[in-house]
Amino acid sequence: MISERLKELGIVLPRAFPPAGNYLASVIDDGLVYVGGHGPIDGDHIIRGKVGGDLSLEAGRAAARLTAMSILATLQEELGDLDRIERLVKVFGMVNVAPGFNQTPAVIDGCSDLLIEVFGNAGRHTRTAVGLAELPFDIAVEIELIARLKAD
Amino acid sequence: MISERLKELGIVLPRAFPPAGNYLASVIDDGLVYVGGHGPIDGDHIIRGKVGGDLSLEAGRAAARLTAMSILATLQEELGDLDRIERLVKVFGMVNVAPGFNQTPAVIDGCSDLLIEVFGNAGRHTRTAVGLAELPFDIAVEIELIARLKAD
Amino acid sequence: MISERLKELGIVLPRAFPPAGNYLASVIDDGLVYVGGHGPIDGDHIIRGKVGGDLSLEAGRAAARLTAMSILATLQEELGDLDRIERLVKVFGMVNVAPGFNQTPAVIDGCSDLLIEVFGNAGRHTRTAVGLAELPFDIAVEIELIARLKAD
Repeated sequence: MISERLKELGIVLPRAFPPAGNYLASVIDDGLVYVGGHGPIDGDHIIRGKVGGDLSLEAGRAAARLTAMSILATLQEELGDLDRIERLVKVFGMVNVAPGFNQTPAVIDGCSDLLIEVFGNAGRHTRTAVGLAELPFDIAVEIELIARLKAD
Repeated sequence: MISERLKELGIVLPRAFPPAGNYLASVIDDGLVYVGGHGPIDGDHIIRGKVGGDLSLEAGRAAARLTAMSILATLQEELGDLDRIERLVKVFGMVNVAPGFNQTPAVIDGCSDLLIEVFGNAGRHTRTAVGLAELPFDIAVEIELIARLKAD
Repeated sequence: MISERLKELGIVLPRAFPPAGNYLASVIDDGLVYVGGHGPIDGDHIIRGKVGGDLSLEAGRAAARLTAMSILATLQEELGDLDRIERLVKVFGMVNVAPGFNQTPAVIDGCSDLLIEVFGNAGRHTRTAVGLAELPFDIAVEIELIARLKAD
């Protein structure tokens, strides 16, 4: 069970973050759940700034890990039970970069590592990890995800 | 009927905009329609410039609304009838940003608001709204979308 | 057969490029193959730099063509046989841009042209082609793709 795995890992999910505009945090369509852009937000604490400038690569990676936890919080709320996930499919990771910072895969590994710790092989996914000019409210990282649900 | 809803709202769709390169404006695959990147184009009029610099947030939001109308024009042409849409799934919104402008969700709300006015609850979608360094031909906003079609 | 078509075109695929982080180069889910972000890499040779600055539009287009070949190499390895592809669905193309360079569709056409040369009408796809602030390791172009597989 994923809930037990989270306990073993010492992971406490944050509150699901409400959408920052007129959209849904996630949508289920035909056995896939599409999770829209999430950021590094734990309760009222938000990690902001440009990686490679305000923030180090390590701080960026921690932000990506926290973003994965925020995505899991949304999935928990949407699905009721994270065990409904059969496997992860795809991650699109965006890093708020200072000019010249291009180690974006190492940053987004903070998300991918956490997802694979939690789901094991079922957490493995394909991915894009790129550097954006600006992210909403200057968050350090934004990530969206697609996952396959188990057949009922 | 969506065509009547558009009339009620006083919305006249622009001409479907031809692709700006060697690609299709949209593709239907297995009950989903994938709409590629669209911009704020109404006939020959194109909204260009960087939001937070050349353009205000409000002008950016208007560009996002116009982009939604351009997407609807493509869907109308692709599907023949907008009533074939069961629901919207996902929007990926990109804002052409001046340095430091990060209120990208408020800009892309211009698209999301229009889609929900037109489709009601079926127009609700998950979303990402981020700031890009450059968009094609300096358009102010570019948006892509995935929608579910009704089963035949 | 696609392998014969590649020979006719004089195209020799590069080695499939190993992922640059903790992710999979591609994932198959329910008849779709999702290919994560790929770059212009041919063996140990990587095309780096900002299009419109370090690199001309033509050099960027060549990088996009090489990226398409790298994607085909991954698909060849994932699928065993490129003839398993029924059609391409969607391309998301990202150009590493110098400030002010916005002819991103002309750059990504280097990818789209190659895909259509190889697959014919089945290679036609919808697309987004935008300018990113930074790409991993300063690669000139990054592209992800979704394709439909033939039913078994």
